[in-house]
Amino acid sequence: MTEHVTVIESVKLDDKNDTIILLDQTQLPNKKVFLELKTVDDVWDAIYHLKVRGAPAIGIAAAYGIYLVTKNSDASSYEEFAQTFSKMKEKLASSRPTAVNLFWALDRMEARLEKEKAQSIDVIKRALKEEADLIKKEDEEVCESIGQYALELLEPGMGLLTHCNAGTIATAKYGTALAPIYLGQEKGYDFKVYADETRPLLQGARLTAWELDQAGVDVTLICDNMASIVMKQGKVQAVLVGCDRVAANGDAANKIGTSAVAILAKHYGIPFYVCAPMSTIDSKSKTGDDIEIELRSEEEIKTKWYSEPMAPESVKTYNPAFDVTDSSLITAIITEKGIVYPDYEENLAKIFAE
Amino acid sequence: MTEHVTVIESVKLDDKNDTIILLDQTQLPNKKVFLELKTVDDVWDAIYHLKVRGAPAIGIAAAYGIYLVTKNSDASSYEEFAQTFSKMKEKLASSRPTAVNLFWALDRMEARLEKEKAQSIDVIKRALKEEADLIKKEDEEVCESIGQYALELLEPGMGLLTHCNAGTIATAKYGTALAPIYLGQEKGYDFKVYADETRPLLQGARLTAWELDQAGVDVTLICDNMASIVMKQGKVQAVLVGCDRVAANGDAANKIGTSAVAILAKHYGIPFYVCAPMSTIDSKSKTGDDIEIELRSEEEIKTKWYSEPMAPESVKTYNPAFDVTDSSLITAIITEKGIVYPDYEENLAKIFAE
Repeated sequence: MTEHVTVIESVKLDDKNDTIILLDQTQLPNKKVFLELKTVDDVWDAIYHLKVRGAPAIGIAAAYGIYLVTKNSDASSYEEFAQTFSKMKEKLASSRPTAVNLFWALDRMEARLEKEKAQSIDVIKRALKEEADLIKKEDEEVCESIGQYALELLEPGMGLLTHCNAGTIATAKYGTALAPIYLGQEKGYDFKVYADETRPLLQGARLTAWELDQAGVDVTLICDNMASIVMKQGKVQAVLVGCDRVAANGDAANKIGTSAVAILAKHYGIPFYVCAPMSTIDSKSKTGDDIEIELRSEEEIKTKWYSEPMAPESVKTYNPAFDVTDSSLITAIITEKGIVYPDYEENLAKIFAE
Repeated sequence: MTEHVTVIESVKLDDKNDTIILLDQTQLPNKKVFLELKTVDDVWDAIYHLKVRGAPAIGIAAAYGIYLVTKNSDASSYEEFAQTFSKMKEKLASSRPTAVNLFWALDRMEARLEKEKAQSIDVIKRALKEEADLIKKEDEEVCESIGQYALELLEPGMGLLTHCNAGTIATAKYGTALAPIYLGQEKGYDFKVYADETRPLLQGARLTAWELDQAGVDVTLICDNMASIVMKQGKVQAVLVGCDRVAANGDAANKIGTSAVAILAKHYGIPFYVCAPMSTIDSKSKTGDDIEIELRSEEEIKTKWYSEPMAPESVKTYNPAFDVTDSSLITAIITEKGIVYPDYEENLAKIFAE
């Protein structure tokens, strides 16, 4: 465990010690703990238990993970190495079925593996490290680009509302939905940010409010059910959210409650922007109906975080981790390649073709 | 402290022992504790700290409270007694500035006092007890009547969503929004109820889920931000909420987040019903803009219930206790005198005149 005080990298490879150094986001904001992941189970567990979360950070963790857990394979042939790789890939892919970035990163690592088929095992291993490093570096560039495009849509002094955490700790740097806020902060834009606490895992309180506050941004924490009143009172001029997966028609899966924020924003005539790296756009999913919604445990609603249970054991819960925001509620989807407006089916296809 | 196992009366007078026996709703669902209130500070504290909550239950507590704290006055003249009454009334009225039922009950007690002006102090005291008893008895009848009218709007097997707690423990019996659910339960209507947990005080988890579960109702607890997905999935055919105050034009103040539920219901084409005793209809407030919104402490959002803080101390919060649901979002207002549809300004005035 190390204490970092300046810019936080939430996922970092320590290649010499065969370790991934990972900020345990479940312990924020009270403890800043960096975990040392060494085995496939360590990495699986970190993704499953949301110790690493945020689509890009999960992708980076998975890429370094698959590199690390195959690095010490004593396979002597490509076939043997590829078999280990495939087994580890399958294992890691099972940690979070709705995180498209997880599959994207693992598929990209596999494509690199296949590309290097003719090479020696040592060269293949070095190539896999290079590929994982590249995934991280590209993510930094992606976030910065999303931030710059999003900033074009905003004006100094605006009130902004965000849900969940799509911040610097969810990515390599800057975040997606929070990227324009950081870039604006550097330019003295003086945004007033409202952060939904985001039940049940409280990513808004524990992560978004924490990281924006650390950066000196004017942030106000509210409960999820207060988004309506702050919008009604004219405190919010734009909503910015990240996303986990965007379907070909623009429907966007993101943290549970995002669709409610979008419906409220539409009601109050406030623009609703989804910040989406191209890697989260899943052209195989035609609409949001094709996106599987992960159901999580009742413990998260009834007992987690609390000093005593908040509901009787006999009471049922329903705990979907995500919901799908209908594309008709989305003002624009902001990618690293530019701002996409409706018609999304047409315009997302166009930006992909560029 | 007594343990009751069957029907719970949340507010009860023990006249012989000069005590109000009050169910401490802040300790539910883990402990069923009955407090013994004896002084004006006890009653003030119970209302202020939400130990008693729900508009009608607050009214009953205030009525018994003003009776109890003037009962042992040694005033020998009406003027002297009335002065004590007035002082105590002012004190109790300061405990919860948005609870119109509090003022209504205290004003009604004062009217009775004035009516008995010519009588001896002893007769006046007995009259005040009679008036408080009557307030409680009438509330039982009001709730049952609201329940019967609301039940006319529902069908067996429906999925119903409710926010906060407008249940039996918030009233003399049955509750307001939950009254049709209890009456339906008696008739085998087999409703599937979704209870919003209702942050930050979690009345939905701690109280609504608890009391419906105790009564054998099929109840599912969800986080506030999950109302959108359950509506989208077709699990909800009607929304039922209570209210703290209804303005003359039908705008309704209720627990924070109610306006969000109403906006979602409108979006998904689901009827949204406000169950409102006539005593919560405040014809002096022309619109919702005239209703003062109570702001509460940041501790409720950041630390309350938790084993450790969920946001850094330096982060600001905004914690309004109520919001106002625009009358245009309300399908009908259900009172004990009948179901009121838009135009509310006209039809609320009409029902008042009946």
